[in-house]
Order: sequence, then structure tokens, then C-alpha cells
Amino acid sequence: MGAEMTDILTLIEETMTLHTLLDPQTIAVIGASDNAESVGGRIIGQLKSGYTGRIQPINPKYETVQSIPAFSSIADVEVTPDLVLIAARSDTVPDLLDQCVEKGVPNVAIFSSGFAETGAAGSALQQRMSQTVARSGIRLLGPNCLGFANFRRGFRATFTKVPFEEKDGNIAVIGQSGAMGIGAAGLLRDEGLGLNFWAATGNELDLTAGELAGALVDSDHDAPDVVAIVLEGVNNVEHLLAAGRRAAELGKQLVVFKVGRSEAGARAVVSHTASVMVESAIFEAACEQSGIILVDDMRKLVDTTKAFAAGRRPRGNRLAVVSGSGGMGVLMSDAAEDVGLTLPQPSDGLRSALAGLIPSFGSTGNPIDFTGNVINDQSSLAELLRVVGASDEFDAVVVSGIPKTLPDSYRQTILDGMHATDKPYFAYAHQQEVLVDMAGRGLTCFSDATAMVHACRKLVQAQTQRRILDEAATVTASRQAELRAVRRVVAEREAKEIVSRYGIDTPAECAVGSAEAAWQAARRFPGVTVMKINAAWLPHKSDVGGILLDLRGEAAVRRAYEQLTEVADRHAPGPDAEFDILVQEQVPSGLELMAGLVRDPVFGPVVSLAGGGVTAEIVAENAVSVVPFGPRRARQMVESLWAGRLIRHHRGLSPAAVDAVVQALLGLQQLAVDEPAIDEADINPLIVTGDRVIAVDALLTIGGTE
Amino acid sequence: MGAEMTDILTLIEETMTLHTLLDPQTIAVIGASDNAESVGGRIIGQLKSGYTGRIQPINPKYETVQSIPAFSSIADVEVTPDLVLIAARSDTVPDLLDQCVEKGVPNVAIFSSGFAETGAAGSALQQRMSQTVARSGIRLLGPNCLGFANFRRGFRATFTKVPFEEKDGNIAVIGQSGAMGIGAAGLLRDEGLGLNFWAATGNELDLTAGELAGALVDSDHDAPDVVAIVLEGVNNVEHLLAAGRRAAELGKQLVVFKVGRSEAGARAVVSHTASVMVESAIFEAACEQSGIILVDDMRKLVDTTKAFAAGRRPRGNRLAVVSGSGGMGVLMSDAAEDVGLTLPQPSDGLRSALAGLIPSFGSTGNPIDFTGNVINDQSSLAELLRVVGASDEFDAVVVSGIPKTLPDSYRQTILDGMHATDKPYFAYAHQQEVLVDMAGRGLTCFSDATAMVHACRKLVQAQTQRRILDEAATVTASRQAELRAVRRVVAEREAKEIVSRYGIDTPAECAVGSAEAAWQAARRFPGVTVMKINAAWLPHKSDVGGILLDLRGEAAVRRAYEQLTEVADRHAPGPDAEFDILVQEQVPSGLELMAGLVRDPVFGPVVSLAGGGVTAEIVAENAVSVVPFGPRRARQMVESLWAGRLIRHHRGLSPAAVDAVVQALLGLQQLAVDEPAIDEADINPLIVTGDRVIAVDALLTIGGTE
Repeated sequence: MGAEMTDILTLIEETMTLHTLLDPQTIAVIGASDNAESVGGRIIGQLKSGYTGRIQPINPKYETVQSIPAFSSIADVEVTPDLVLIAARSDTVPDLLDQCVEKGVPNVAIFSSGFAETGAAGSALQQRMSQTVARSGIRLLGPNCLGFANFRRGFRATFTKVPFEEKDGNIAVIGQSGAMGIGAAGLLRDEGLGLNFWAATGNELDLTAGELAGALVDSDHDAPDVVAIVLEGVNNVEHLLAAGRRAAELGKQLVVFKVGRSEAGARAVVSHTASVMVESAIFEAACEQSGIILVDDMRKLVDTTKAFAAGRRPRGNRLAVVSGSGGMGVLMSDAAEDVGLTLPQPSDGLRSALAGLIPSFGSTGNPIDFTGNVINDQSSLAELLRVVGASDEFDAVVVSGIPKTLPDSYRQTILDGMHATDKPYFAYAHQQEVLVDMAGRGLTCFSDATAMVHACRKLVQAQTQRRILDEAATVTASRQAELRAVRRVVAEREAKEIVSRYGIDTPAECAVGSAEAAWQAARRFPGVTVMKINAAWLPHKSDVGGILLDLRGEAAVRRAYEQLTEVADRHAPGPDAEFDILVQEQVPSGLELMAGLVRDPVFGPVVSLAGGGVTAEIVAENAVSVVPFGPRRARQMVESLWAGRLIRHHRGLSPAAVDAVVQALLGLQQLAVDEPAIDEADINPLIVTGDRVIAVDALLTIGGTE
Repeated sequence: MGAEMTDILTLIEETMTLHTLLDPQTIAVIGASDNAESVGGRIIGQLKSGYTGRIQPINPKYETVQSIPAFSSIADVEVTPDLVLIAARSDTVPDLLDQCVEKGVPNVAIFSSGFAETGAAGSALQQRMSQTVARSGIRLLGPNCLGFANFRRGFRATFTKVPFEEKDGNIAVIGQSGAMGIGAAGLLRDEGLGLNFWAATGNELDLTAGELAGALVDSDHDAPDVVAIVLEGVNNVEHLLAAGRRAAELGKQLVVFKVGRSEAGARAVVSHTASVMVESAIFEAACEQSGIILVDDMRKLVDTTKAFAAGRRPRGNRLAVVSGSGGMGVLMSDAAEDVGLTLPQPSDGLRSALAGLIPSFGSTGNPIDFTGNVINDQSSLAELLRVVGASDEFDAVVVSGIPKTLPDSYRQTILDGMHATDKPYFAYAHQQEVLVDMAGRGLTCFSDATAMVHACRKLVQAQTQRRILDEAATVTASRQAELRAVRRVVAEREAKEIVSRYGIDTPAECAVGSAEAAWQAARRFPGVTVMKINAAWLPHKSDVGGILLDLRGEAAVRRAYEQLTEVADRHAPGPDAEFDILVQEQVPSGLELMAGLVRDPVFGPVVSLAGGGVTAEIVAENAVSVVPFGPRRARQMVESLWAGRLIRHHRGLSPAAVDAVVQALLGLQQLAVDEPAIDEADINPLIVTGDRVIAVDALLTIGGTE
């Protein structure tokens, strides 16, 4: 292999890891200006204060820009830059990009707007650049983006005034929209947290927030522990999910706030950027399955990021609440229970250890109330925090507020409590100056007690997600596909025959062609009988009276046969339309569920579980998982329905029934992999009766164009 | 009537309105001290800075206290004080209270702790004081309380350092626990809001947070527009509800945060104070029906209070979102939809008015995106805000963030927008200094965009509550009670006969004593038949096979009769136990609901509505109303189930069915009033089939001791 080839391979590798973008040795600026207030002037100005590499301003009108020697075009620069920043009129940008490619530039960031976000003409310009990127392999941030700042390296490649100073930290913030990312970063800074990276990805023609996040968590140096991301649309979801999985592997964390869930919001996203909308529930499942923590507002993005940035992970969901105010202890207990954390009561041994440290009018129960009195007796408080922190009866500790008015020694006592434990340990403080002070000393404090407890819950959730990731689920075909990709509907009998091969029980049944055969079949079933029309052209047979229940005795069965054949004749699409009559044992009534399979254009096969029957349909809850998933995730689907009550309620599922549902979900997954021609599967109802789970009806839709 | 009698009546009236407590002319302090750092010293010190009435320190050891002439006991003071503050050892307090009564003191505030919150001995002391209060009519704040501050009058009757300065405002904050009330007050102050009153009510031996709130909203002067209350337990809920209703009448608002919902929280409340626990759902219904807004955390208490303190009320739930950042507009849209606010799209006329004010890459749709560009063109933004504010297409306006970095003129433009409309109009700002600055200029800003939208939702909710209050529901007995208060169960047949008199449909049925009679009854019904055991001693008949469904034909009916009498004989408590067999038309299957009535020891009769059947029981949602309520409230109960989907879903209730359910709920209410002997009523299932609503089974429990 020649030297040139080696160089090319190195270049490709470097480009792939994006390290020349994140840590460029040379930056050129197209549109650089002497006017410090102009866009091109601000870029140079910000680079000058902090960037230690070489700056090469490009401007044909000047010899120097802000005292730095300038070049008339990118073709003329002395050293090929690692990164070119472009702030020029949008219609000139595609040509400038071509020039960068010609020069061998590996990365560009395009600040200019006027592309896909503005209409047809802009979209055409963006389309041309997409072709350039695809052809050349150059990496492109933007267009219509605010740029980025690598605080660890001390430089800002942006024209906007990033409203915070450089500070060492372990948090990266990435937003598509500049305003939201800067907003989140600003909130973190205002509360004393340190950032090491910020970026706004704009239209994401090439580089997405997800790919950037992946490159950051995986970089040799500069790597943040937490990447906080604000997404509007999702471009290239696979990058995002891979980044989430990689972060989890490395003990790091992605926290994602996705805006645009509502109808009005979705309209606004479409008018705001050109991103692809994805189905919300499936997107959320895919993120969860990839170890990503999702939040649903800006405040939670900030609080959750803070909790992860503190670095400790809980082993379980047992919270100790330690409060000097009874009322605040109660508030935190409420908040904990709302989100599924438990507050175990201390053992007798722990209680007696605590009793000596708490006045009689306090409480050694959890929430532990050390009373306002302890302000005068901080040695007891210090010992109390040490005892609670060292106990193996809790997995995390939250401590009541730090009022501005208390002396510094109180802050120190609370801080010492953190050092005396390796569990997640947080406090709250209403005043911003206290937050900043405590953050500076190394203790993460929250501005609100409820928010603090909810952030703890996210730490627990991430641990659960990791156990699910550890399942390392993969599904391979168990046999040769049998179903040909010819568009059609597979009716009940054949559909149940297929799903029954995947560990899903079905009722005993028989297809018949005469009233006599119907009766002969029915008499073999011990209880009452159900009879149905089985026809691919009648998928919604219950709507037309194609199902008769509760049939007893010969007369009823024979009458039912006549009635159903009449109905079938009336609804048949033609005289030769095929159908038969199904005679089925009637399953005892029980809890109705529905299980299904769809193929999502973005995420591939997706398995779902929901309540069945009218009530459940109105309540409308639905758990989904993207294939592949393992039994833990399947179990989580069951647990997630109706806030866990499907399992915990005394009329809910027995442990054996839960197992059967889990097997059914895994079976549907295997079916999806074995038979790629199946577009949709619908088992409705899936009836739970005692420990058994039975697919009483099923329907498959086969895709394809043949 | 003699002068003395008139004086006594005046005194009673004054005591009732509590104005001598809120605005005392003379205050005596028992336990007053020269030591400025002691409790008694701090009280005097704080009174000296601000209180304009006469201060009378009580301390037998000194001639003067902090330069004010002192008295040796309350008996010796020159002028009978309007208010005595007591900071003395708990065991001395009951005697000191007696002395106050003897002197004719109308109000005391007891700061001392060591009463019901500490155990048996303390409870005995508190009990003795309760008797004194009951006997004398003296009003007592505390014990174990932090006192209060009347900022409007410029004084603080407390030993704690209230961590905020006096400032004119229209908000009162009341907490039982000192820490939580001070916390809420501090948050409001830190964001630039003005308080006019703060109190901590402690053990609430006499004065409750609710009564204090009522006195405040009703006072001639000093009246706050909003009272924010933090409750742990609820003592004398009637005072709280009356205060809520009075506030609503006067166009004011109570906002209540009740802690202690969770199990752990409830334990902590019990160990923290001695308050009565009330059933959470019933308490919430009673508050809603009294015009009180409930919140579930501290941050929401603060944000909701801010929204109401701004003074404007929306006419409907149509929100205009005006944002300079597309992403933040989407965020606010999501938040609005989450809580049921709508974002109507502007009419063509309004759109064209907006189009001239927004760059082409912005959006004239709602959320309205004026783009970052407008920062350079504030006259367009000013006009945009004026046009949106003046439009009758919206009921409230929220505007995107005010970054610290933008020039002052931007803040002024946003502020001008508020003055150009009479609708609720808010903005948000992440920096505390911006919040304070804008509050000072008269515009309420929130620290978080989501919180701002949720606070708007609370304004809309309060308007709905007022319309329900306007129903002025009263229910009087429609007839003489017929049921004697003899403890017993009323079985299905009689129970349905009773409820059917209240506009609730029941199926056709007949009680029979033989198989022949059963068949004669069944043949009169057109469809299939249900047969049941009807016996007061068998309330849960379905558990033992006491209900047979889907009966067709003579043989089936006769067999069912034999079977049911066998079951009854097997389960009868004795040989003479009465029962009969019910033959009933089978109601077509439909949506199952349950309606019920219970008598709560605190709130009296309560009517409930929930989903029926196994699924609904597992989902566990329940709407309740305290009697009396009107049709609007009954409709709200139906709407509240499953987030409105019971009405909106295509398989949910038809408008006629909703009316029928409303009538059933009002009927149950009337039944509760007509027959006070009924302890519980249970209609389960209440089946909705088409437009009809039918009580398929019912059970009454009669209370009493006869």
C-alpha cells in the first residue's frame, strides 16, 4: 500500500471520528471581516480570544483581518485548514463548499441561513450541497447553524455571543435550534455547572446532533460524561441510538429533550426546520432501548443532566430523605412515590443509631426529620448524614434545603455528608448564589426539592435501561421464510396457525363446510361454542355479525351455521369469494389484551401491547418495543401498562400470565424476523384467563408488490 | 340594649373578623428579652423596626426591655393589648393563656413548642388550652408556630428572621410549617413579587390556615388578591372551603399546595403535626367545587400564585404563543396541548396582518415565530404584539424569553405588548435579575416556559371552577325519608326500585318463586335472559355463581332456576334466610361504568363515577363530587375520566348518554339528601348502550344503630 493510500485511509478515519472538527489545528473563516460587530468580524474576534491554533481569514478585499494575514480565497491558503467556517450569502455557499472539497478540507461549518428552512430556492441550494457531501465525504455542520464551542480546548467557532464563560466541566450541550441549546447551556452555567462543549446543528444536512454526541462520548480526550440534547426533528435516528448505546457502554449518559410532540408543535417544527417527523411512541421506545434518558421539558433536561453529571449511579430505587423541615420531608416523600421510588423505613438497628442524633420531636422514620434544632448542633447532623450515607438500606440520599441565611458551617456539614458516602447524594437550595457556591464545592444542588427527587428517579431509570441493554438482544431467523411477498390479508384460521408456532396459545377450532360438520365439531368441545366467518376479504367480521358467541346445543349450532353463511354470502365481494365457517371452543372470559406487530419505515419491526376491549381502547395506553428486544424489555412493556397496575392489581395478571405475555411478545418478534413479508400482525383479543394467555383472534397483513 | 352589651357584641364581631389580630393597636410580648439574639429579644427587635402601635414587653425581671417600659405580668399592663405574643416554656403557657383571657385579650400567638407535636404530655397541655379557647372565645394562633408578618402594615410578629424585606404586594402566603411558607414566600420575593402578608399557623389549635385566609380576603383593607397556602394536614376544612368560595365571589383566588399525599408522606405528617388526614380525592373535589386551585409541588405553587397575582383572567382556553425562537415556540405548544389548552390557527385576516410584520422564514401560524431577526426591528415586534393582543381569536398570550444579553429596549417592547392588551400576558426569562426587573416594571415573567404555560392553564381552570360555583347548587329533600336507620343491606331488586325513582333506568325484571314463574317471566322479554339470586345476605353474588347470563329458551330458564336455588341454599346463613330469584331482560353489552355514593365523616355525602369491569378497575380512575353539586360539575366528572377520552373517543359516550349519566349522578345526590339513612349506594355496572344508561345491578347499605 502506497503512502498516498495510507494518507487517504488516515484522513477517512480522522474524518469519521470527527476529531479534526472537534479539535482543529487550523481554522479558516470565509467572510472574515474587520468590522468587529459584523457576523464575520465576531467570528474572528471570538476565535482570537481562546483559540490556540492558526486562524486564516479569507477575504479578497483585505491584506489582514483584525491584524491577522488574510487570503483571497480558500484555494490560496498556505495550510489546508482542518475546519472552514462559512458566513456568506446563501447563493454563494455551494460554490464555496466545492472550493473547500477541492482544497481537501475535511470539515466545514456553515452559519449562513437561506437554505431548506426558507422554501424551494433554498432547498435547491441545500440539495446541491448534499450531493457535494455525498460525493466527497467532507463533513458539514449546518447550514443555518450557530456553530459550536469546545470549552475544554478553549475556543468558540460561532458568531453568536455565547452567554457564558469557559469553565471546565463534564457536560456537552447540543441543540438543533441555537436558542434552545444556548438556553439549556445557560441554565446549567447559571447554576454553577461546567460545560466542555456546546453546538447548534441547524439544518443537519450532514452532521446530526446524534452523530456529534457519539463522536464526543467516544473521543479520546475532551469527552463529556453527559450529553444533553434538544431535538426538534430527528435526522438519522440510527446515529442517535448508536451514540446512546456507546455512552451507556462507557458509563456515560445521553439525555434528550425532544420538542414537537403536540399537533401545534409538529406544525411549527415543519415550518421551522426540514426534519423528518417520527412516530413519537416508537421513537421513545427506541431511545429507551438504547440507554437514552428522555425528558419532556427544558427544566427537566437541565435537572436530569445535573444529576448524571454528578457521576454516581444508584444500585436500586430506595431513597433516604433527610430533612430539617417536616413539611419538606413530606413533600419529597410525595414526589418520590409519584415517580415510583420507595422510601423504606429504617431497620431497628438504624433507627436506634439515628435516635441519639435527632431530638425527640424529630423523626427517625423515613423521611428522616432532624428538625430545625440541628442547626444549633451540627455535629449531630454530620454524624446523621454519615450514618445514613453508610447504610445499605438506601440507594440514594436527598437532603433538605440550604437556606442562604444559615452560616457557612451548615453548607460544609451538608457537603461533608456527600464525601461520607458513595451513593448519589443531593441537596436543594432556592437561591441561585447557594447553587453556584455548592456546585463550586463539588455538591450538585437543585433549585427545587420535587425536581431533585424526579432527577434521582431518572438515575434509577438509567440503571434499569442498562440492565435491558445488557440483554444484548439479537434475533436471527429461526427458519426459512414461507410467506411470499404478495400483498394480501391472512384471515383468522391461517393467521392463528402461524402465530401458534411461536409459543402463543390458540383455542381449539375446526373449519367446516356444512351445518352437520359444524355440529360434529362443536360436540367435541366441552363448553359453549363460538362460530365465525373465516375469510380474508372480511377482516372486520364482528362489525357485520360474523361472530356468534355462547352457542349451546345442536339446534343453536346448526342455526348459527345457516345464519353465518347467509351473512358471508351477503358481504362476499364476488360469487367465487372463498370463506369457511370456524367452529371454536369459547375461551372463558378474562382480561383482554391486544398484541401487535407493525413495520415502521424508520425503525423497522415494532411489537406492541395494549389493553383490549372498549374500555381499554378509550383509555388508550400502549407499550411498544423496537425489534430486537429481550425478555427484560418485554416484561417492562407489561409493567408499563397502566402504571404497573396490570401486574400489581389483584385482578391483574398472575406471574405465570406475565410470563406467557412475555413469551407472546418475544414470539411476535421472532415472527417478524422469520417472515419479512408480514407487514402487520394483530392479535385481538389476547385473552388472559388464569395463567393462560390465548390468542382468540388474529390477522396478518402481507406486504409486497408482486 | 345597654352600652356594655353593645361593647361585647362589637368585641365578638371584631374577634370574628380577626381584624384586631391582623392590625393590632397594641401588642404585648410575654418572654420579652433585652438579649437581642434570644427568641424574646428578636421578637421585640423586629417589632421595633416597623410596628407603629404600642409595644408592651412583659418580663418581671426588668423595668425596660430594649428601652421600652416593661410590665411584670399581663395583669399589670396599662392598656389591654389587641394581641399577646407568647414565647415561654410550654408548661407555663396554659396559665399565661388564662391570664390573657382574664385580662380580656382578644388574640394570642403562641410561638412556644412542646405541645401536641411532641407526645402525650404536650398533648395534655394543648388540650387544656383548647378548653380555655372554647370557653372564652379568645383567638389563638399556634402553638408551635413562627407567627406572622403584615407587610402592608409594616410589622412582623415573629422571632424568626423572615428572609425578605417588606414590599408592597397583593399576595398572602400561609403555611402550617414555618419552613414551607417561608420557602414559598422567599421564592416569590426572589422573583420580584410583592407580599402583603405571611403567617405560619403551627399546630392550629384554634386558628387554621383556612380561617386566616378567609379573614384576609374579606378584610376591608390589607386584602390580598391571592392567598398561597401550604397545608400538611387539614384542620377544619369548612373554613378553608368557605375562604375559597368567598375569594371567588370577590374575584380573588386561593391556591393550595397540600403535601402528604403519599404513604410515606402521610406517616411523616402524623409524626410532624397532629392534623387530621382527609381522603385525598374527596378533599380535592371539595376544593375544586369551592373555587380553590390545587397544585402538587412548591414550584407550581409559586408559579400559579404569580399568574393569579397578575390579575387578568382569560375568557377561554385559546392560547397565542409568540416566540422569537422556533424551538421554544414548539416547546410551548407541546406544553399547552399537554394540559388541554388550544392553539387556534389565526384567521386569514389575522395572518395577513401578521405577514407584514414577520420575515418570510418566520411563521404566521400559531405558535407565531417572529424570528431572531426582529431583535433588529423592534417596531415590527411591538406592532405584532399589539395585533395579537387585540385579536379576539385568543384568550391569553405568552411571549418567548427575554435573554439578559438583549438591550433594554427589547424588554420595553415586550412590556408595551402587555399594556396593549387586557388578556393574560406573560413572558419568561431564565435569569433571576431579568425576572426581578420585569416584575418591577409590572410584567410577570416566569423562570421556565413550560411552567408559564401550565400557569396559564390554571387561570383557565379557575374560570371553569367559577362557572361551576355560579351554579350555586343546593339540594333539598324532595320528599319525606322512607328508609329507617336500621343497619342492613338492601339487595338488588329493592335497591334498583329505589334508584329508579331518581331518573336512573333499570332493566325490566320480575322476582319469582318457581321454575314455572321464571319461564313465564322470561318469555315476556324479547331477547336473552339473565337470572340472579336476590338476597340481602348475598351482596357479592357473582363471586359464588349467583348470576347466570345468556339464557335462551324454556329448558335453559328452568334449569337456571334450579341451579340458582341450589346455590342460594348452599350459601344461606340460616334455614329461614330470605331470597328470591330475579328474572331480568339482558341488557345489550356496552361500555361499563360504576356510580356510587358514600358518606364521608368530614365532607358528608360524596357521589362518584368510575369505569366498570376488570380493565377499568385495574386502570383505576375515579371522579368524585361532594354534595351539593350541579349539572356542570356532574358533566365535569364525566369529562375528567381518562383525560376526556370517555367523551371524545369515537367509542365513548354519545351526547345523549352523557346527559343520562349526568342525570344519574344528580339522581344519586338527590337520593343522598332524601334518604339520610343510606350510608352507601353502589350501581355496578351502569351500562351505556347507545344513548341509554341502565343500572344493571345496585346495592344500598343502610346505616344506623337501631
